[in-house]
Amino acid sequence: MTDGKRSSRRDHESRILRELRRAGTLGRADLVRRTSLPRSSVFAIVGELISSGVLIESTEAGSTERRRGRPSALISLDPATGLIVGVDIGRQSVRMVVANSAHQIVAAGAADPPAGPQTADSCAEVAEALIRRVADAEGIDLSALDAIGVGLFGLPGVHDSVASQSDALCHRLSSRFEVPVLSGNNSRLAALAEATWGAGRNVDDQVYVRWSVGVGGGYLVAGRPLLGAHGAAGELGHVSIDPDGPACECGGRGCLERSIGGQALIEQCRRRGLRVADLNALVDAVQARMAVAEDVVTGAASQLGVVVAGTVAQLDPQRVILGGELGQLGGPVVDAVQAEIDRLAVPKLRRTVEVVRADLGVNDGALGAVALVLRSRQLSSTG
Amino acid sequence: MTDGKRSSRRDHESRILRELRRAGTLGRADLVRRTSLPRSSVFAIVGELISSGVLIESTEAGSTERRRGRPSALISLDPATGLIVGVDIGRQSVRMVVANSAHQIVAAGAADPPAGPQTADSCAEVAEALIRRVADAEGIDLSALDAIGVGLFGLPGVHDSVASQSDALCHRLSSRFEVPVLSGNNSRLAALAEATWGAGRNVDDQVYVRWSVGVGGGYLVAGRPLLGAHGAAGELGHVSIDPDGPACECGGRGCLERSIGGQALIEQCRRRGLRVADLNALVDAVQARMAVAEDVVTGAASQLGVVVAGTVAQLDPQRVILGGELGQLGGPVVDAVQAEIDRLAVPKLRRTVEVVRADLGVNDGALGAVALVLRSRQLSSTG
Repeated sequence: MTDGKRSSRRDHESRILRELRRAGTLGRADLVRRTSLPRSSVFAIVGELISSGVLIESTEAGSTERRRGRPSALISLDPATGLIVGVDIGRQSVRMVVANSAHQIVAAGAADPPAGPQTADSCAEVAEALIRRVADAEGIDLSALDAIGVGLFGLPGVHDSVASQSDALCHRLSSRFEVPVLSGNNSRLAALAEATWGAGRNVDDQVYVRWSVGVGGGYLVAGRPLLGAHGAAGELGHVSIDPDGPACECGGRGCLERSIGGQALIEQCRRRGLRVADLNALVDAVQARMAVAEDVVTGAASQLGVVVAGTVAQLDPQRVILGGELGQLGGPVVDAVQAEIDRLAVPKLRRTVEVVRADLGVNDGALGAVALVLRSRQLSSTG
Repeated sequence: MTDGKRSSRRDHESRILRELRRAGTLGRADLVRRTSLPRSSVFAIVGELISSGVLIESTEAGSTERRRGRPSALISLDPATGLIVGVDIGRQSVRMVVANSAHQIVAAGAADPPAGPQTADSCAEVAEALIRRVADAEGIDLSALDAIGVGLFGLPGVHDSVASQSDALCHRLSSRFEVPVLSGNNSRLAALAEATWGAGRNVDDQVYVRWSVGVGGGYLVAGRPLLGAHGAAGELGHVSIDPDGPACECGGRGCLERSIGGQALIEQCRRRGLRVADLNALVDAVQARMAVAEDVVTGAASQLGVVVAGTVAQLDPQRVILGGELGQLGGPVVDAVQAEIDRLAVPKLRRTVEVVRADLGVNDGALGAVALVLRSRQLSSTG
């Protein structure tokens, strides 16, 4: 093979792999269509990649191509290679998922956060132990691991958390597993996960709110995550709703998070005679329709709605997605936020701004860490 | 010439013209570098375009190429062709600028808005008369007109203004001058102008605020205007600062614009014993350091600062630009907004968010209408 032929062959191969990474599973005819490569070239390259174990072939009932009279196989990246692990280091738990190269989640697990202070070391240790334990239990061969994504809570430089030590944490995990490690804020990653697989699929302009112990957000503008000049966009919880109010740990005053974050609501319930031990107990109390808990949470949802209405006036999104344990309560929380948007966010424009509950549950941050890895590959392969 | 050669020649020509449209004026060597085309091809095409009157050649003292021993000419699009008119239809005046193909402003003018209701017809009439009057006075040949950009105030469907009739207005102007006409909201266009030629040059993430009779905004995210799902992003003036406050014409309640828009400030001055006839008189009073006017405007600037601090927490911009007659007062207004951002917008992150005064004065909207035309060409020639 000449140098020229070799490089064009490499180019064709990478186009085929890129389409499979994006779609997960495709027929040969789909690959011809999507890559615009000659049919003969696609068939030859796919054949070689199957022999070398990069791709696998399966037939599925219901394949559209089969109906046209030809039995047809579906091609995907070999699930035993190209694994991606997503880890979400939260305040209350560390969660992880494992995705195979066809973008299917093949395992998930959780652990408690480090008992002592959350340093790069202690968090890397907990994450490594969790990854190895889940891999053992599920029979996953970690030599097929390709990359790790990590989600971190908190504001770098503000919280006494790993957020300010993300480089050290990534470096440690990278040297333990000998793969690249990417990291990001876990609210922004949860937003990315919802935009990729959840309630924000196919919506280009959206505001995601993660309402839990903290209040964070992640916005999508014209299909791209809004990062900001310092990668810190989306800090909805640190919008001041009372500029002369009490000091917040971020250094500001009267931040939304201080009024409606999980801890504030637990205290409000206690002042009104309802003892709830933690955020999970508060969520249970709302779901059990206990009046005080419902009242406290829907009141807070209205406060959240006022701030989100301001975000809607400024960003003009199509959809608002409520995630986190409190956002995912749905019903009364969605209604309260929707009511404030309808009342305050330039209602005469009669725009449709739909408030919906997030889809992906407690693993949203870990899934977002996987999405971060996938998106960085797309950017590097199309850039 | 074969078809293939003709199409590659057209492609080369359009690459040369694109570079000249972007840069205004370039030497032949610059053109070779920027287009990556063969030197011989650039020289041949430039020669033909000069003969056919599309390009012109001039020598300027101080040209860097001259120093290298060869006398060198600067090439630009012929200023007598490819004119772009930008018109800004504001509440208080209609303004226009004329840009030549080298992006130089060669004329400007202003007129009163229509005396009666601002309809598509009445505004098109005022704009047409203004364009013809300025062209006559400045000896501009309108047969060289290439495109018109139009900025409109107000919210479509809300204000009794031309904003809701922009299609009809564009259509009318387009048929009178037989050129394409593009339109947009004038706050967003002023933001685009500042980002292209003014205080936001070379800044990818910025928040522009136009503080005048109304309060509007336009945001730039990763170098692109933030449009939103319905093209209505940036309505900072309709963020509610008092959700149970008085009704706003937008249909919301307690909107920022109702508290700090020009009319509200004039009324505040009157209640405190200072009679100011209109916005210009208010601006004069602040500049003359009249205590009541200064006090009212800096108090309002602090209110604006609280809302902008929330925008900064969510968008993480590098720079905040204050435009409009009130924003461009500079000094105390800039300081008041900066103080609220420093106090409220996650100060422990120690980000540099610089508040500056807009650069482009009263013609910002009209300049933005020119920038809109230029940007739409770049998008179509590179997309």
